[in-house]
Amino acid sequence: MSIVTIVGAGMMGSAMSFPLADNGHEIRLVGTPYDRKVIDRLRQDHFHPALKVTLPEAVKPCQIEELGTALQGTELLISGVPSFGIDWFAGQVLSQTPDSVPVLSLTKGLEDEPDGTLLPISKAYFKRPALASRHLSISSIGGPCISYELCARRHTTVALCGDDLGQLEQLRTILQTPYYHIRTTTDSMGIECAVAMKNAYAVGVSLAIGISEAHKNEDDTHWYNPQAALFGQAMSEMMRLIKLLGGQPQSVIYAASDLYVTIIGGRNRQLGLLLGEGLSFAEAQQRLAGVTLESISIITRAARALRLRRDASINDFPLLRHLDEIINRQAKLEIPWTEF
Amino acid sequence: MSIVTIVGAGMMGSAMSFPLADNGHEIRLVGTPYDRKVIDRLRQDHFHPALKVTLPEAVKPCQIEELGTALQGTELLISGVPSFGIDWFAGQVLSQTPDSVPVLSLTKGLEDEPDGTLLPISKAYFKRPALASRHLSISSIGGPCISYELCARRHTTVALCGDDLGQLEQLRTILQTPYYHIRTTTDSMGIECAVAMKNAYAVGVSLAIGISEAHKNEDDTHWYNPQAALFGQAMSEMMRLIKLLGGQPQSVIYAASDLYVTIIGGRNRQLGLLLGEGLSFAEAQQRLAGVTLESISIITRAARALRLRRDASINDFPLLRHLDEIINRQAKLEIPWTEF
Repeated sequence: MSIVTIVGAGMMGSAMSFPLADNGHEIRLVGTPYDRKVIDRLRQDHFHPALKVTLPEAVKPCQIEELGTALQGTELLISGVPSFGIDWFAGQVLSQTPDSVPVLSLTKGLEDEPDGTLLPISKAYFKRPALASRHLSISSIGGPCISYELCARRHTTVALCGDDLGQLEQLRTILQTPYYHIRTTTDSMGIECAVAMKNAYAVGVSLAIGISEAHKNEDDTHWYNPQAALFGQAMSEMMRLIKLLGGQPQSVIYAASDLYVTIIGGRNRQLGLLLGEGLSFAEAQQRLAGVTLESISIITRAARALRLRRDASINDFPLLRHLDEIINRQAKLEIPWTEF
Repeated sequence: MSIVTIVGAGMMGSAMSFPLADNGHEIRLVGTPYDRKVIDRLRQDHFHPALKVTLPEAVKPCQIEELGTALQGTELLISGVPSFGIDWFAGQVLSQTPDSVPVLSLTKGLEDEPDGTLLPISKAYFKRPALASRHLSISSIGGPCISYELCARRHTTVALCGDDLGQLEQLRTILQTPYYHIRTTTDSMGIECAVAMKNAYAVGVSLAIGISEAHKNEDDTHWYNPQAALFGQAMSEMMRLIKLLGGQPQSVIYAASDLYVTIIGGRNRQLGLLLGEGLSFAEAQQRLAGVTLESISIITRAARALRLRRDASINDFPLLRHLDEIINRQAKLEIPWTEF
């Protein structure tokens, strides 16, 4: 049994308490400043208002002011912050974490640099001046896992990636349960690229679902073929990007399963549906006010990087390019089928 | 404009008449002995009873006795027979087709040999004694394409594969339309393996949908995570098999998009649903009487081959192995999660 500190009491960070509690660990769940009300409620009766589930008794909810205490004696630090929170996490949390404590990031995203470099989140931390000279061990976890299903202990298979296979095996021992299946790999680039980009491409595939919805009164034929063609194009572009960034082609498997689950049950499909139904991006954004959509950021960042890079052309990624044109250049929906 | 002869008036063979008619070709649609009633009806008013659609006027429906006339002057022969019909097609049709007429096979499947070799259908034809010394050019087409959506001219992207890229480009010119998008590749092994195996794995992924259905009264949490884990495992096993058989890893993209469309809209998911709900294979088969399920044959053949081969172990394909145990060894459903 270990002491594990999770920072970020959002849905995924909080859901991780289930496999940890089932393995007998002590869990300190620290809210970010955005999670104040969630922590208040958890302290009352352990009920998580967003997950709509009672967290295990082993969870000790802490407000951000208690971070120092929550980090004392911890053997694993888990980051459950969203991608726009990584500067905060670096400055407020990692700055006071000793190098000896392994860090596990649940954050999905890629960070683009001015020269078109795309960095996985686990590596982007080291670009922060305060962390550049540190020897933190940051692993990450990715793959298809809807948080409330993790709470219901549904079977899932995820990828745990980092530089040190021995370290990954130790983490696996802490996290793995009879329903939470973990594969380890050193291909952080491939896995983090796959799980970040699937949020972008879930919007792309869902366009066909939206177009079908918009036309269902005129014609009740399904639009499964166009969905599948977009799924294939998404896979093709993700495989190309993984290779371009030096990841292993094998990791495209997680892109596939994570894209699948995001289309059938995730949040990012909502944006694709609305755009497919014919709304402009501004109208869709208004309709989705209050929903955090990682897809917008990853589409923007990946397209910006690909327009800059000399070893690639954005035109080799026509679906991503079109999503970027819709979101950032006021383009109308017109799927570039002939470029696929 | 060309003369094209399609043999097999099933759903896919008949649906191909839409892109062909849109490109101005003359189409001779020849029924197999099983299609007699379909051809009778098409001759009346061009209505296809299974597709529930009126075929283009350019289609000339022919009974099997008119095959000789239908082959006269044809510039392309398309086979729309199912996998159990290839001996018939070889003996009755290819035997009277000159080598100079290109053949395009729509049949999905892999044929296993006594030593564990798995052959794509386009190559299996040449194992027939009557064709062994022939110089037929047999290409094949695969990828996500639901037949009635092709009739509705929905966008789709398929792979056209064969040995001769020049020939493939000619075929593409005949077939491609603004909605039927075609990529060419010489990787027949990879594509035919992908599109055959997806029928097997659609059963595997659908098990989770069935389990979820069976438990929905006790627990309304979705089973998207298990579906995605099975999707990932399916991808992983398909990629492994494609590599084992000498196909290109890139072709796994068609496995992904074709698996996706089969799960959301195909026939083979029905078997997985029933098995997931707890029916034995015998009970499921009874329930599905009359439905042609290519999945049963491909699971049996691929597993049989993998148990024989020296360069592979069936235990590297635990999902396929379990499907085979359910179908051919009366095993109860118990997904081997820990082997994934």
